[in-house]
Amino acid sequence: MEVRHVNMQSDNREPERPAHPRIFPAREAGKSDRQPAGRSVDFSVSVVLPAGGTGERTGLQTPKQFCSFLGRPLISYTIQAFERVSWIQTIAVVVAEENVDLMMDVVRRFQHRRVRVVPGGSTRHRSIYNGLLALGEKEEEEEEEEERPKVVIIHDAVRPFVEEDFLYQIAMAAKEQGAAGAIRPLVSTVIATTSEGYLDHSLERVKYRASEMPQGFTFDVIYRAYQRCSESDFEFGTECLHLALQYCGTNAKLIEGPPTLWKVTYKRDLAAAESIIKETLSRSACVVTGGSTEAVSLAEALRKAVGALEMELDVVPDLTGDNAGYLLTGWNFIRVSVGDSWLPEVEAVLVALKEANRALLHPPVVVWVRLSSADEPSVSGKVAEPAAIVDLASTAKLGNILLYGIQLHRSQDAGRWERSVLKVAEMASALIRGRSPALVGQLLQA
Amino acid sequence: MEVRHVNMQSDNREPERPAHPRIFPAREAGKSDRQPAGRSVDFSVSVVLPAGGTGERTGLQTPKQFCSFLGRPLISYTIQAFERVSWIQTIAVVVAEENVDLMMDVVRRFQHRRVRVVPGGSTRHRSIYNGLLALGEKEEEEEEEEERPKVVIIHDAVRPFVEEDFLYQIAMAAKEQGAAGAIRPLVSTVIATTSEGYLDHSLERVKYRASEMPQGFTFDVIYRAYQRCSESDFEFGTECLHLALQYCGTNAKLIEGPPTLWKVTYKRDLAAAESIIKETLSRSACVVTGGSTEAVSLAEALRKAVGALEMELDVVPDLTGDNAGYLLTGWNFIRVSVGDSWLPEVEAVLVALKEANRALLHPPVVVWVRLSSADEPSVSGKVAEPAAIVDLASTAKLGNILLYGIQLHRSQDAGRWERSVLKVAEMASALIRGRSPALVGQLLQA
Repeated sequence: MEVRHVNMQSDNREPERPAHPRIFPAREAGKSDRQPAGRSVDFSVSVVLPAGGTGERTGLQTPKQFCSFLGRPLISYTIQAFERVSWIQTIAVVVAEENVDLMMDVVRRFQHRRVRVVPGGSTRHRSIYNGLLALGEKEEEEEEEEERPKVVIIHDAVRPFVEEDFLYQIAMAAKEQGAAGAIRPLVSTVIATTSEGYLDHSLERVKYRASEMPQGFTFDVIYRAYQRCSESDFEFGTECLHLALQYCGTNAKLIEGPPTLWKVTYKRDLAAAESIIKETLSRSACVVTGGSTEAVSLAEALRKAVGALEMELDVVPDLTGDNAGYLLTGWNFIRVSVGDSWLPEVEAVLVALKEANRALLHPPVVVWVRLSSADEPSVSGKVAEPAAIVDLASTAKLGNILLYGIQLHRSQDAGRWERSVLKVAEMASALIRGRSPALVGQLLQA
Repeated sequence: MEVRHVNMQSDNREPERPAHPRIFPAREAGKSDRQPAGRSVDFSVSVVLPAGGTGERTGLQTPKQFCSFLGRPLISYTIQAFERVSWIQTIAVVVAEENVDLMMDVVRRFQHRRVRVVPGGSTRHRSIYNGLLALGEKEEEEEEEEERPKVVIIHDAVRPFVEEDFLYQIAMAAKEQGAAGAIRPLVSTVIATTSEGYLDHSLERVKYRASEMPQGFTFDVIYRAYQRCSESDFEFGTECLHLALQYCGTNAKLIEGPPTLWKVTYKRDLAAAESIIKETLSRSACVVTGGSTEAVSLAEALRKAVGALEMELDVVPDLTGDNAGYLLTGWNFIRVSVGDSWLPEVEAVLVALKEANRALLHPPVVVWVRLSSADEPSVSGKVAEPAAIVDLASTAKLGNILLYGIQLHRSQDAGRWERSVLKVAEMASALIRGRSPALVGQLLQA
């Protein structure tokens, strides 16, 4: 069996990309970085990611793993979930021959570093086997033969929300038991049908589980299982745990996983996945004030108002020093501007984000909030300013940053001021959650 | 067993609500009404809708069936799916004792007409049995005893997207075979586990199916099954098809249903359901021009531009006569205004929608598109106009209508004009799909 593969690791130039989330600077790290703390794994672990599906069940032309979410294909999110984990070495992504170029392009575009793209076989098991062989192979550019990993994790390209903590459990159990797999309770009763389409019997729900991914195996167990299994297994089998049991006598340890392990299968799952991705990107925003008393007090009022909207707001004077940590992952930005000097202030946030080079994997929303006097003509009444924010937003959008504006007026009336602040909070929250590309550059009125 | 129930049908005042979607006026009906054509069913069919779940698996406090989607609880969507079907008589909604008042309130607020609210039992089977008993009972206000329905459909409150066509298949098969149920292919392999948490064996996927809802039974079969079954069945059983087989010897006919039958179970399913509901409400918009040549030509340009955005646009001069059909269900509105007379034009659309009384179940989006000269000062520069649209939007929102504005300028430059029109189309589409309550009353610039 010919196994062609391409190793993006062999590229010696360290690509410019954000630092690893877990080496995020001190104080702020715990807040924005939702990854569990790294655990030590003292054996080698690599991953096979079969991504050969054709997407029949979504009813779409594009296979699910290449469907785009906020401009990035699903497979890239899944790869990122593994790249986040420091103890994982190589990720063999197995795709249909005709998608090798597309996959290579994804790897390049999103700067994935630990990936090998492997052409798949005609069935799921043949594809996984190809991935396995690729993990044991020598790289052309490498001096020494790469050691076979001790443990191989097999996952699905269309389960993007797997977390480090669960991967750790699977890897440890696989090393100890030879095989381990994720399970979930059954959502529906399972029934056996007669050949005429009638009920034969129903299974007792408590005795059965749904077998999910990830699964883990020692390289030896899964490799031997594939060496020994029949053509018919290769052709019609679906369950790796079953092969390990049948051909190596290894009873897999089963571990109940979180509901987020679910497989993106139907069109509704694409909507659910998009919603989870958006929610993850919308959990927190950093309010940059520039330090003026008035801006700080507006920022604090916003922080109060936004509490009810389930978004975390931090207030900082600028994004230098320790505060530069906010630029690295996860955070969105609200720039409060008082007076006419807003343009360079907003530009400074955009430049800092660009330098942090995170927008590719973590696209941020920037909301510019302009505080003006009630008697001052509305900024959108002047010709220059709306045009300036439209231009700024167009440029930002090319760099994967979504920029919107909100204007509010000072008021001596306490009730009116409170309503305006609440309106700004609601609108900022709606813009951050909505991430609508069609509305960038608009200047909304609070 | 005491069965308390309340029949909303006994209210003699015909509630003010939109006409039944299938008696929607002539020409336009086929376009916006996605229900399959009615089929004749010459026997009586009623529904039991157990809605006693506690929502543990979503991780939310509110039980899933009462979670709100665009201001309306999920259970109301499910009830509506049955009310749409002309041959369904009564819907017995069975809720936990402590939710009877809440459920009554939902029925009143959303003007459901064929519903009886029945207090549930301590298990799913007891609740279904209560619903069944309620269907056979005499109403206090009724002259004659209500006949037991020939067929009873049992469904879940948390499967809101069931369609008439599939209900018809289930009802017909139930009448012929005594029992019928929806099935779906298994998404995951099902495995049996040992008591120590290891793999025992995996099931051959092709021989099994997931049992879903709806299920249908002749009243006699399901009633007898419940009369004969044991306390242990009432306590621990989950599968009605199983009772029909065990106690009446009735092998249910199994019918493969569409993926939309899935059960809202986890938090991600709430996101998927919301996305389907929003998509259904965003399929089409009606552009009202007032008839002026300039407005008509802009409307036609929008129709072209919006083609790529997968939204259906119809262009009409007004909403009177035959065009009043657009007011009844499903459609959103884009009011194109030329010049300064926009306020009464937008108000007229809002008044017509209010009179059609559809916003409760089919909340529409209204986008006001204002065409102005390039040299004219931006409308948001004048104080009166933005305030007027904010006020109009606040009032409309109380009536469940979301109003937004978009302004574009005339241009002699063909390229520039085309870009502006495309921008309007993109923004209108984003506003209609997004349905953000926080952004109503804004006047965006194309």
